[in-house]
Amino acid sequence: MVRRAGISQEELRRANVSALLSWVHAHGPTSRAVLTTELGLNRSTIGDLTSQLESMGLVSEGLPVAERRSGRPSLVVTACPEVSVVAIAVDVDRITVALVGLGGVELERRVRVHQRGEHDVKHVVETVAQLVREVMTHPDGARCFGVGVSVPGAVRRSDGLVRFAPNLGWTNEPFADLLSEALDQPVAVGNDADLGVLAEHLRGAAVGVNDVGYVTGGVGIGGGFLVGGVPLGGSQGYAGEVGHLLVETAGPKCRCGARGCWETKVGENHLLTGAGRLPGGGPTAVAEVIAAADAGDQRAAASLDEVAEWTGVGLRAVVNVFNPEMIVLGGVLAHAWGARPRLVEDALSRGGLVCRLDRVTLCAGALGDDSPLLGAAELAFAPLLADPLGAVGSETALAGS
Amino acid sequence: MVRRAGISQEELRRANVSALLSWVHAHGPTSRAVLTTELGLNRSTIGDLTSQLESMGLVSEGLPVAERRSGRPSLVVTACPEVSVVAIAVDVDRITVALVGLGGVELERRVRVHQRGEHDVKHVVETVAQLVREVMTHPDGARCFGVGVSVPGAVRRSDGLVRFAPNLGWTNEPFADLLSEALDQPVAVGNDADLGVLAEHLRGAAVGVNDVGYVTGGVGIGGGFLVGGVPLGGSQGYAGEVGHLLVETAGPKCRCGARGCWETKVGENHLLTGAGRLPGGGPTAVAEVIAAADAGDQRAAASLDEVAEWTGVGLRAVVNVFNPEMIVLGGVLAHAWGARPRLVEDALSRGGLVCRLDRVTLCAGALGDDSPLLGAAELAFAPLLADPLGAVGSETALAGS
Repeated sequence: MVRRAGISQEELRRANVSALLSWVHAHGPTSRAVLTTELGLNRSTIGDLTSQLESMGLVSEGLPVAERRSGRPSLVVTACPEVSVVAIAVDVDRITVALVGLGGVELERRVRVHQRGEHDVKHVVETVAQLVREVMTHPDGARCFGVGVSVPGAVRRSDGLVRFAPNLGWTNEPFADLLSEALDQPVAVGNDADLGVLAEHLRGAAVGVNDVGYVTGGVGIGGGFLVGGVPLGGSQGYAGEVGHLLVETAGPKCRCGARGCWETKVGENHLLTGAGRLPGGGPTAVAEVIAAADAGDQRAAASLDEVAEWTGVGLRAVVNVFNPEMIVLGGVLAHAWGARPRLVEDALSRGGLVCRLDRVTLCAGALGDDSPLLGAAELAFAPLLADPLGAVGSETALAGS
Repeated sequence: MVRRAGISQEELRRANVSALLSWVHAHGPTSRAVLTTELGLNRSTIGDLTSQLESMGLVSEGLPVAERRSGRPSLVVTACPEVSVVAIAVDVDRITVALVGLGGVELERRVRVHQRGEHDVKHVVETVAQLVREVMTHPDGARCFGVGVSVPGAVRRSDGLVRFAPNLGWTNEPFADLLSEALDQPVAVGNDADLGVLAEHLRGAAVGVNDVGYVTGGVGIGGGFLVGGVPLGGSQGYAGEVGHLLVETAGPKCRCGARGCWETKVGENHLLTGAGRLPGGGPTAVAEVIAAADAGDQRAAASLDEVAEWTGVGLRAVVNVFNPEMIVLGGVLAHAWGARPRLVEDALSRGGLVCRLDRVTLCAGALGDDSPLLGAAELAFAPLLADPLGAVGSETALAGS
């Protein structure tokens, strides 16, 4: 690949400050000795960078908790958790707002349940703004560096416009602009699965795995991918819509307008109606079907078998396209795989080119339903981590509002 | 994203040497003034880097050809074309071997036609080795820095093992090792479409486009993708197999073992048999069908219509997954789109999530059938461009063999 530009001495320093802060944010308290090795920089550079970050109030230094007996202990560098961001997840059935500190420490959380009929975008903005004000009463809200939001829909990267979030009933809603106005603060918005894979990669099931997909099933199917460690966004941010890959030509009509999309065969409501229940019950109803299948309910078991089978069929396409090392499953897909792993894996292995050649690791997300929320925190931290020298000073706006 | 490591002063210098050489390799002769602007480095740094590259015989400096009247002209830096690599494309119907100079200058080329029945891997290795010896008789063969090969199949990144190249009849062939032994030189092997997208991005239809797919149709369909400028390889190098996405549940049996794969509906042979002709005629026979359709042959026209329709259906999935800015088409897909653009675009726009939201640019490859060959040259140049200071000195092995 062609490098776009060279690196100046000034950029070198900024990049190294960024590398050190990002390291302790991701890995937790780390000794100077380990930082020297892991970052490939010499001891005096690590000392300089740490001093600079400490003077900016972004890290603290101290003796290790369990001090070694012999030799001078290496000072331990810790990200300051009172340096915070606001993370927001707008889901179909609830809104979650958390204040998250550097290092990934959750400082405060508010949850407001809402329902279909309460998804009017202005109403959601008001609710979110209220919850943000509540979490900001936490003492560490004073050093808040940004706001990140997860939305279950296609989000235009350039301006946070929600192009299409069918389960919220949103089309072309300028959600980022509206919330930004309400909070008097810039707001970054991302797709829930795109943020989910970031979080699972940083602190969840996929730490150290650079070719990984996060595929999660609710009413629809969301997909987020890292390709060689780089988030797959596409030219406008809409990439990863694997829920609309065809799995059955004569299959059910999908809300996207096509027929036989993967999400029509494995979504929550397909599992529920297959088990003879009403659609719309969400994760609680899904858990009931799984429990009923375990308890001998044959209709529930048959519906679960079918969803597991189609989960594997869809994953086959994902594997052929991405050849991932790992696929992290969320929502109903994680349940189907947890309950019927052999059915999923057999369907995945049948036919298909890459699937037959080498195996992929399937696993359930390690962060549960919080992956998109924690990914939203990372979205909000991104400018600070990318350039701590440039970002410090920008944290007053929200606190002052 | 978390940075893996910091950047030392030594790495800074290596990165900037790499950036300058990569720039002139990609963009051709460039003045010091433009390099200063484009690379974001100051004039004295550019001067130092240029001198170092010149002393290593990788670039030359001179006055611009059209000298400006006023002021001192900025010296122009040019990559030395006599710094070369060997690029090889193994196709179903031919083997092409070229000596390619830095800057993308083709110095020498040999083509050997072969046929089914002549694909035995040892025979192919012998033929390739003979053609390499022929192109190396060119005077600039003396400074050859590497060998890159394009193969129409799934290639394991770690060792160049060809896991599956159905149209050559190869399964688990250690092609890189065998050729490396025959040439007494390391050999890098890649998938033809993965290399095609690199070449189209560097010098073809997709210059400056960082989210781009190259999808090419022969007997099968090959796909190569850049995601945010990063090649999609997957964990082992097998990613991008979009030819095996399902497009029709009850469709024809595919050589991959599944049914209704995209390539069963749009491959060369599907066009040929649909037009009432024998399969196996390759690009020549495809061109005849297109010409016949133009001349009023209704069966040829109907077959072309059908292939154009299915081309659009498959591209719909590609767009949903990758949200690319551009898809560069090759082979029979380029022909179908060239002859029936409306049919392809209508099928692409029907249903599907992302397709309806924003348009993607379709175009034919600008490098014709040479994209994989030129991508193979880039594969061979990659170590030199990534670290010129480390690579110089490695060029003698092949010349000495």
